[in-house]
Amino acid sequence: MSKRPLILVTNDDGIVAPGIKALVNVVKEFGEVVVVAPDSPQSGKGHAITLETPLRMRKVDLFDGVVSYECDGTPADCVKLAKNVLLKDRVIDLCVSGINHGSNASINILYSGTMSAAMEASLENIDSVGFSLLDFAFDADFTGAQKVARSVVSSILKEGLKGTKLLNVNIPKLPADEIKGIKVCAQASGMWVEDFQKGEDPRGEEYYWLTGKFIVDEDHQDTDIHWLNEGYASVVPSQHDLTHYSSIDGLAYLESM
Amino acid sequence: MSKRPLILVTNDDGIVAPGIKALVNVVKEFGEVVVVAPDSPQSGKGHAITLETPLRMRKVDLFDGVVSYECDGTPADCVKLAKNVLLKDRVIDLCVSGINHGSNASINILYSGTMSAAMEASLENIDSVGFSLLDFAFDADFTGAQKVARSVVSSILKEGLKGTKLLNVNIPKLPADEIKGIKVCAQASGMWVEDFQKGEDPRGEEYYWLTGKFIVDEDHQDTDIHWLNEGYASVVPSQHDLTHYSSIDGLAYLESM
Repeated sequence: MSKRPLILVTNDDGIVAPGIKALVNVVKEFGEVVVVAPDSPQSGKGHAITLETPLRMRKVDLFDGVVSYECDGTPADCVKLAKNVLLKDRVIDLCVSGINHGSNASINILYSGTMSAAMEASLENIDSVGFSLLDFAFDADFTGAQKVARSVVSSILKEGLKGTKLLNVNIPKLPADEIKGIKVCAQASGMWVEDFQKGEDPRGEEYYWLTGKFIVDEDHQDTDIHWLNEGYASVVPSQHDLTHYSSIDGLAYLESM
Repeated sequence: MSKRPLILVTNDDGIVAPGIKALVNVVKEFGEVVVVAPDSPQSGKGHAITLETPLRMRKVDLFDGVVSYECDGTPADCVKLAKNVLLKDRVIDLCVSGINHGSNASINILYSGTMSAAMEASLENIDSVGFSLLDFAFDADFTGAQKVARSVVSSILKEGLKGTKLLNVNIPKLPADEIKGIKVCAQASGMWVEDFQKGEDPRGEEYYWLTGKFIVDEDHQDTDIHWLNEGYASVVPSQHDLTHYSSIDGLAYLESM
């Protein structure tokens, strides 16, 4: 890449979350950075987009002179606005999303606003990476995640992103010098076993509040959760084609009407 | 299946949308039906779930005696509540979502609350189908979609759902007797070319409102959009593993840190 690359940064924890500042500080070493991120936390918003109401963007100054806007929409909205309004006449070389406070490994990619923002950019044909640290804390230590992000971004800007447009990168909750390395692997198979906390609100009305624990299918070894448990950062090349190709032929019985 | 199957119905257009009534009227021919659906429209909500606030369910009587609840959460929340609270001690044989007012073909599966509800059920290991009619109108004619739904549900209850847990079914906007048949096929490759309508609100503040048109990659023929254009209903077997397996080996250059 001869010119300085243009890098779009977004997230789902909101523009004031420490994770996005940690990511901006990494990518500004590599190119021109523009931030468009939600003005409020959007965790668990999945690939939501805003259809029924208008969106607003407001310029902010949170990242030492980096051009930055907050938006009152979802993470996917932020990417759409950046691509089609703010940076309409320019080529975005890379989109990075995060660093998320909490894991987006395994099927959590489906619920994740962080990954949906990255997915949205990949749908727009932009190389795109979501970064997530396995620590939900507001004051999490992002040093290890920054080290991984620096390595991945540097490789992509040098070599291009081969074979896919989207990476789901998760980083274990470890000091930077204890992260053993990076593994490119598959999404682990797993599921949430949910429970709802039942309660009564101050007006006496019943409510349910989501809680649960995540159960991993341990049969497969070369997966994100396996490598995270071993102390590695995981990189899962991801895609937006959800077709389960191998079952198409076997479903011909559905065609008789 | 010897006993009457238990069928969960949900949607994303909200519990009062005509599409869900059309679907309830089909599936109640086949088994015991329970409805849990959002109390307000949730189009474009993707796979959003509610983490930060409690959820409420209220019993309603909208479907001639069919047990029904509205919920103030997202479509995925409705499925979680149905599975883990309402029907906690029972086996759900099938989950159907829709009938959506509007297409969820191609990549629109990613934005779709209808399909995310179905996806959520499939993550819970329940056979699951989302139905969408290519007509956004409130007073759309669901007769053709009902004919397709009746055929697909009947086949699944007789034969089981083979090879996958999740189907994305779209139905063309045609009179029932003009639908040529059902095709099992792949998700079309395509993208939204977005535009934002820029305006000024009554207080003089600038806003952006999402609009756009959908561009399909016409190179591939055995896809949902191809068959819908030809007058067929499309059935895409879908999955929640987003790994792009074929690019894992080629990305080894990301592992050097």
